[in-house]
Amino acid sequence: MPPTSPASAGAQVAAADVAALAAGAAIFGTGGGGAVHTAQVVAEQVLLENGPVPLVTVDELGPDDLVMLMSGIGAPTVGIEMLSSRHQIDLLVREAQAAAGRPITALMAAEIGGSNGVSPVGWASRLGLKLLDADGMGRAFPSAAMVSMNVAGLPCDFAILSDVVGNVSVIKTIDLHWLERHARALTVASGSICLGAHYPMTAETARGAVVEGTVSAAIRVGHALLSASEPVAAVAAELGGSILLTGKITDLDRRTEDGFARGSVTIAGTGADRGRLQRLELQNENLVVLEDGEVLASVPDNVTVIDAETGQAITTEMLRYGQRVAVLAWACDPIWRTPRGLELAGPQAFGYDLTYVPFKETTR
Amino acid sequence: MPPTSPASAGAQVAAADVAALAAGAAIFGTGGGGAVHTAQVVAEQVLLENGPVPLVTVDELGPDDLVMLMSGIGAPTVGIEMLSSRHQIDLLVREAQAAAGRPITALMAAEIGGSNGVSPVGWASRLGLKLLDADGMGRAFPSAAMVSMNVAGLPCDFAILSDVVGNVSVIKTIDLHWLERHARALTVASGSICLGAHYPMTAETARGAVVEGTVSAAIRVGHALLSASEPVAAVAAELGGSILLTGKITDLDRRTEDGFARGSVTIAGTGADRGRLQRLELQNENLVVLEDGEVLASVPDNVTVIDAETGQAITTEMLRYGQRVAVLAWACDPIWRTPRGLELAGPQAFGYDLTYVPFKETTR
Repeated sequence: MPPTSPASAGAQVAAADVAALAAGAAIFGTGGGGAVHTAQVVAEQVLLENGPVPLVTVDELGPDDLVMLMSGIGAPTVGIEMLSSRHQIDLLVREAQAAAGRPITALMAAEIGGSNGVSPVGWASRLGLKLLDADGMGRAFPSAAMVSMNVAGLPCDFAILSDVVGNVSVIKTIDLHWLERHARALTVASGSICLGAHYPMTAETARGAVVEGTVSAAIRVGHALLSASEPVAAVAAELGGSILLTGKITDLDRRTEDGFARGSVTIAGTGADRGRLQRLELQNENLVVLEDGEVLASVPDNVTVIDAETGQAITTEMLRYGQRVAVLAWACDPIWRTPRGLELAGPQAFGYDLTYVPFKETTR
Repeated sequence: MPPTSPASAGAQVAAADVAALAAGAAIFGTGGGGAVHTAQVVAEQVLLENGPVPLVTVDELGPDDLVMLMSGIGAPTVGIEMLSSRHQIDLLVREAQAAAGRPITALMAAEIGGSNGVSPVGWASRLGLKLLDADGMGRAFPSAAMVSMNVAGLPCDFAILSDVVGNVSVIKTIDLHWLERHARALTVASGSICLGAHYPMTAETARGAVVEGTVSAAIRVGHALLSASEPVAAVAAELGGSILLTGKITDLDRRTEDGFARGSVTIAGTGADRGRLQRLELQNENLVVLEDGEVLASVPDNVTVIDAETGQAITTEMLRYGQRVAVLAWACDPIWRTPRGLELAGPQAFGYDLTYVPFKETTR
């Protein structure tokens, strides 16, 4: 299947694009366990039933459009149940529209990385809404405050949470840290899984505040991965990124702390990279790559460990001793390289005492 | 000062009535620690500044009236801070009115017992609203689901929570158990103290669903307590209740479990009651009185341990070995003696394997 073009009018995401979207979303975010595949299966089914979803750019939004982020919150393994509750989705949208005082016309992914980059396609199809070719991160981050709209200074007017039982809440917090705190508390009280909608935006407020083109980018990356004869190289080329090392996982120190997968992975180079050693620091996502004490790439730039043969992303939870992998790195969206972007999601925001150096193509 | 008359048109609660209201509210509910006195001090101050509050009956409500319950949620010792935040109250009311789609015109206490029976007077005065001469329990109960409106089958359309930080939430749950669960989760996330508004009611829905006359009753009881030469007898007479025993606390087994003060108190009779022994079972409130294996009174009927001299209520937290006390019991509102009332708040709802026998005046 041909990849969906990013900016072309009349673009849409069809059931046949979902596998590529999921493969690409998995490259963009590796913190979500096995939820991407679940989201793919559900979204494919919904799109087969309800038809494709119009994929629109910010420029294509009109004055009557209202975009909201929609996402799953909580334990990803329970996510499949959540998606099948039509009542829960309807409740969420009804309350969101009541709070906004106008109809929602388009959905946007909070983060393109992982299952939350895939599920919005299915939700949009179910609800007959458009999908914005954009997201709030251009990748995946572990905190709701680490979104481009927050970098741009756009406040989140309200958030809605609905659960499978039929409870729904409207949360208005003074900032996104409080939003996350309250949303997590409600999610735990609801049995650890909720559907959320937040950040109502118009064409005007979305412009410059969202990371554009990421849905179509994920589909292109996924397509490259699934169809190329050399998937690792093809994915790196599609992202304008680099393979920092090809090798074997020789050490793995990973623990779950405060609901985060934290730790480090050591990869010993093989083949042309024999003799080299890299260490990755991870907190849900892969955040820093070190070699000989030098930082080769760090958050907010992207680092994903992919299978050395298939190019498929390996989630941080699925990393195993002995796996043959390639370390893929590419530049983040420019918004994350601004002072406010680095304050929110630079190395120091994750507790690393290092100065951010923008990742560039190396010549090796 | 004369007690406020219950049903008379033009009735109001003035600053001079607050001490009596607080003393009475303390008799009606003993689970709230020292918060009643705090609520009294704050409400007196507000009424001195803003003037008295009109006290109205359900019959005096018109078609444009909208009543809501307003209460403090969480750690009562932090409550004093909460009351002083004008912003928090305004936020609460603004969201409540937006959710209801019309102005709130009157407040009602969720429970007349304890601080939540006193604070609404101050809130009503601040907001320029009427106070309904009624509450949702006619006493105090530890669960939000144990309200007369729930017995009457009236659903709670929504609840609002606001915190001192400036966060506010609208919660719509399928029942009051879920409401309590979600409200507690949000309250903990907000630092263990919130202001809440819930159960929007019209004159029509409130009629028969609320326990009427309880604000004026609490003021009358408090007045009797504060002005009579024999306060213990005066309070019992005002409530149409009985003193089950006068004696001394000889044993106290009390522990905090799941945020509840649970345990039992043994009281040995003195004077005319010498040789008798009663045991009280408590879960925040005093729930069951036993003597020689016989139940003398039990929830939902009212049991309060009062000071044998002053007649002042002793909260379950303040019970101490050696205290000279009287055990006061009186009948609950008839709504609690219905099958649905007993299902929600009868002995078995609190885990006691005993059949409810309505408390009557004894001849002893």
